[in-house]
Amino acid sequence: MSILRYDPTTADWVVFAPSRALRPHDGRPRSEPAEESPTALAACPFCPGHEALAPPEIYAVRPPGAGPSEWQVRVVPNKFPALRIEDDPSRREEGPAFRCMGGCGAHEVIVECRQHGVPLAQQPVEQIERVLGTLQLRHRDLLGDRRFQTVIIFKNHGEAAGTSLRHPHWQLIATPVVPRLLRLKHAQAMEYFDQTGRCLYADLLEQELAAGRRVLAANDHFVAVLPYASHVPFETWILPRLRQASFTRVAAERLLPLAELLKCVLLRLHTGLGNPDFNLTIDAAPRNDEDEEYFQWHMRILPRLHTPAGFELGSGMSINTVLPEDATAFLQEAPLNVTAARDASTCE
Amino acid sequence: MSILRYDPTTADWVVFAPSRALRPHDGRPRSEPAEESPTALAACPFCPGHEALAPPEIYAVRPPGAGPSEWQVRVVPNKFPALRIEDDPSRREEGPAFRCMGGCGAHEVIVECRQHGVPLAQQPVEQIERVLGTLQLRHRDLLGDRRFQTVIIFKNHGEAAGTSLRHPHWQLIATPVVPRLLRLKHAQAMEYFDQTGRCLYADLLEQELAAGRRVLAANDHFVAVLPYASHVPFETWILPRLRQASFTRVAAERLLPLAELLKCVLLRLHTGLGNPDFNLTIDAAPRNDEDEEYFQWHMRILPRLHTPAGFELGSGMSINTVLPEDATAFLQEAPLNVTAARDASTCE
Repeated sequence: MSILRYDPTTADWVVFAPSRALRPHDGRPRSEPAEESPTALAACPFCPGHEALAPPEIYAVRPPGAGPSEWQVRVVPNKFPALRIEDDPSRREEGPAFRCMGGCGAHEVIVECRQHGVPLAQQPVEQIERVLGTLQLRHRDLLGDRRFQTVIIFKNHGEAAGTSLRHPHWQLIATPVVPRLLRLKHAQAMEYFDQTGRCLYADLLEQELAAGRRVLAANDHFVAVLPYASHVPFETWILPRLRQASFTRVAAERLLPLAELLKCVLLRLHTGLGNPDFNLTIDAAPRNDEDEEYFQWHMRILPRLHTPAGFELGSGMSINTVLPEDATAFLQEAPLNVTAARDASTCE
Repeated sequence: MSILRYDPTTADWVVFAPSRALRPHDGRPRSEPAEESPTALAACPFCPGHEALAPPEIYAVRPPGAGPSEWQVRVVPNKFPALRIEDDPSRREEGPAFRCMGGCGAHEVIVECRQHGVPLAQQPVEQIERVLGTLQLRHRDLLGDRRFQTVIIFKNHGEAAGTSLRHPHWQLIATPVVPRLLRLKHAQAMEYFDQTGRCLYADLLEQELAAGRRVLAANDHFVAVLPYASHVPFETWILPRLRQASFTRVAAERLLPLAELLKCVLLRLHTGLGNPDFNLTIDAAPRNDEDEEYFQWHMRILPRLHTPAGFELGSGMSINTVLPEDATAFLQEAPLNVTAARDASTCE
């Protein structure tokens, strides 16, 4: 059972989830070979045929007439949820300066493929498209619950990115509060819109396209850039050319070009940096702000090449040792041919 | 040469310091024994007798009549500085949405003891007092430079905390901007003050003392608490009982009781959690706000037991698996006797 407590010094809500301390960790230390033991593979709750090891299915994509284990993408509740739909989101005071609420929310796992050891970069674009469609569907569904304010979609790849199970998956957490960081991003964009009448993200994208030096890849609908003020080395954003505040608003026919661009970016990171650990998040507008003109949803890929230390924790500022224009030039030379790179040949 | 770039989406300045990519890393992987090779020890720029391996001394504490190598605490410039005093802090536009400035600031290393392998928790309180006095002196001196807005004081202990050299040391970075996180903390405290006429931190401390369950240790002048809304497991704050907005304002005779409490906290973390990696930061008011009534400086000790993952990076929210009252009860049982614990017997 989780609880949220409010930190009045920073306006953050902190999620307390003691049960998550019990999570398994099958991630291998960096020194070990990539192959896993047969025991670890047999215990993987996300492999086909092991459906009974995970909580009951929420949703799945299956070909017509397929059996229960013949899914292509599968969504299950997180077995060690940070937040749960049963909890009560009403606030309580615990003395004048202490405020808390029940850990109400949702925490789902999206198993992105059947294969235990194939990273997203090496999946066919059609499979990546299926995953994106599933994320969008779950995102929309959860925003239908009026207790949930935002949906955070993310993926952890590798030990340094905090993953606990190796079978490739995404996660999605619906929160009963709008996180302060998202409020900040929206306030910044709103103020810019109020001052200029324009969308901050559209202007940034336009300027990055004009400069060119930090554009890693692009197609007719999406652009991948390493932003001018990247917080970490090789941070990469994917932005839609069409202004949309929420990922829920992306038209179905745009998911394939999005998958193509995402695959291209992940392949270049994979080959250029040697399969780095990374986090991937989708920043989108909270519920009821999905059609605002001032915001633009975007995907952020954050390689975990560096450990934030005391300066970062004390100041909140980042020290980045690689200029994004240098990182872009480096990645543009990275090959697109790990094993299945032909699927990415449509991006430039 | 460093540069700062402004991220208009979050109002953060990011420090770009490509030369820091060249830093040495003598930290041992967790699997290796604690003993270092004679080669690594011979190359340590912070060991007595190796003064020539570090940049020229800024300041040192020495007993009367002591020779150059007989220092007790020593301050040198960081050899791979994030910011440098020579750079120009004026802002420049690089197109309508891009803004940058030179990496003007200061980056100093405070070598906290002569011994290469003795952590702060095991130093005599008089040595810890000397270190705190040195930090305060450098903090005051750097705020005399009107180009510097804040001084971030921090310590990285262990690999997971981002340390690159093992000889125990603190660091201090003077920044030409007030970091957004510090602006936020000040805005929160100011708003609370404007509403209530009281200091937020004094009220939090009072309520923690009344609750008692999260108070780890205290003396007449300082209190160590694991805050109600701790962001990470075993996060511990040290707060002064006397309201002071800046660490620069602590009276000289209070540094010994502060050292006693700090030693007590670090010993309990050391013995209770098995010498965990941690960051320690001192949050203090920016220049010219050092006598504000609404803020209170505080020390934050942040054990690095958990890897923040995609949810944390996407939302800015923390998931904490240990309630601070449970962590406090656990640490209160931790022994104070590693090897030099008698020095901490004055704290309760």
